[in-house]
Amino acid sequence: MQSQEPNPILQLIEAFGTLPGVGEKTATRYVFSLLGQPRSVVERLGGLIANIHALIHECEDCLNYCSGKKCSVCEDPKRDGGVICVVARPSDVIAAEKSRAFKGKYFVLHTLLSPLDGLGPDKVRKQELLRMIRMHQTKEVILATPLSVDGEATALYLSDVLKREGVNVSRIASGLPHGGELDYADQLTVARALEGRRSL
Amino acid sequence: MQSQEPNPILQLIEAFGTLPGVGEKTATRYVFSLLGQPRSVVERLGGLIANIHALIHECEDCLNYCSGKKCSVCEDPKRDGGVICVVARPSDVIAAEKSRAFKGKYFVLHTLLSPLDGLGPDKVRKQELLRMIRMHQTKEVILATPLSVDGEATALYLSDVLKREGVNVSRIASGLPHGGELDYADQLTVARALEGRRSL
Repeated sequence: MQSQEPNPILQLIEAFGTLPGVGEKTATRYVFSLLGQPRSVVERLGGLIANIHALIHECEDCLNYCSGKKCSVCEDPKRDGGVICVVARPSDVIAAEKSRAFKGKYFVLHTLLSPLDGLGPDKVRKQELLRMIRMHQTKEVILATPLSVDGEATALYLSDVLKREGVNVSRIASGLPHGGELDYADQLTVARALEGRRSL
Repeated sequence: MQSQEPNPILQLIEAFGTLPGVGEKTATRYVFSLLGQPRSVVERLGGLIANIHALIHECEDCLNYCSGKKCSVCEDPKRDGGVICVVARPSDVIAAEKSRAFKGKYFVLHTLLSPLDGLGPDKVRKQELLRMIRMHQTKEVILATPLSVDGEATALYLSDVLKREGVNVSRIASGLPHGGELDYADQLTVARALEGRRSL
């Protein structure tokens, strides 16, 4: 490790810090692990990372990430554009698809309302959402943004915008998770589970 | 995400799995985090990873990773080749250098003796170690391999080899860590701390 020229190991340790939750210690572990692996494996990983932005962009309809013009859900003729599920992030689409509970289309916001971070209503991509709703003559929108402060604020804001369009708006249910027990849940979750009770 | 052609997101998620401790969930988080970051930052990380094997190789003396012919310790004329500290991995050199407790040179084994994994004495790089010792007319070797089964076996084996060369051999101390308390330490650590007691 020479001090005269930039040290590639230290540069890579620092660059790994861009990944979420990766500090100096984890980054160092990653770098030495890569140095102990076959060169072809490491070059493939590096190439895939370097090219990911060139290969992946937003679906022209729903803004989900995809490699073609449209994502696989928007391209699927069997998916019903009459119901749109609005989520915060592309990873939420993957989670929703895994549940197999939804046969409509998605819309990915990418940005939530967060006034404290300088993200006002102008940053929420409602124009693209309205365009998609008009195109598919959507009847119902399920707001599936997180049940956090920003997620709730965004849902409230979009609910107003969408109702003015004459669309039925709903919010995903909040309550105990599957297998959950009252005494292990936090107060707010218990309160919401009680409020949202269903008659049997 | 099209199913016809290979999906770059899924490919990258799978490729991230090569990093230690990174499963599908962490890999997915990394990929979506990279997609949300500036393209230049992501391309820099990918480029550094892809080039790390081309830029980094073993120091021709001590086998530590470096970008020149020799590592910075071996190139430093102030470091004393009369004492060599033998470690298992390049990251151990970084840890030892941070302690500032050692002014000699290092030797990096890269591989420990581990008969159960098919790593016999022929895989331990003793020829390079002997070459370095003869070159520097080394008087003392500190065996700083881990205090694990493989590390202890390697230390025992190298101790025999080195004593035949007429070198003084020592093993790093084992005992309670700094700030450690007896009732929180495991049995073996306590036993070693008692055995290795020093008179005051």
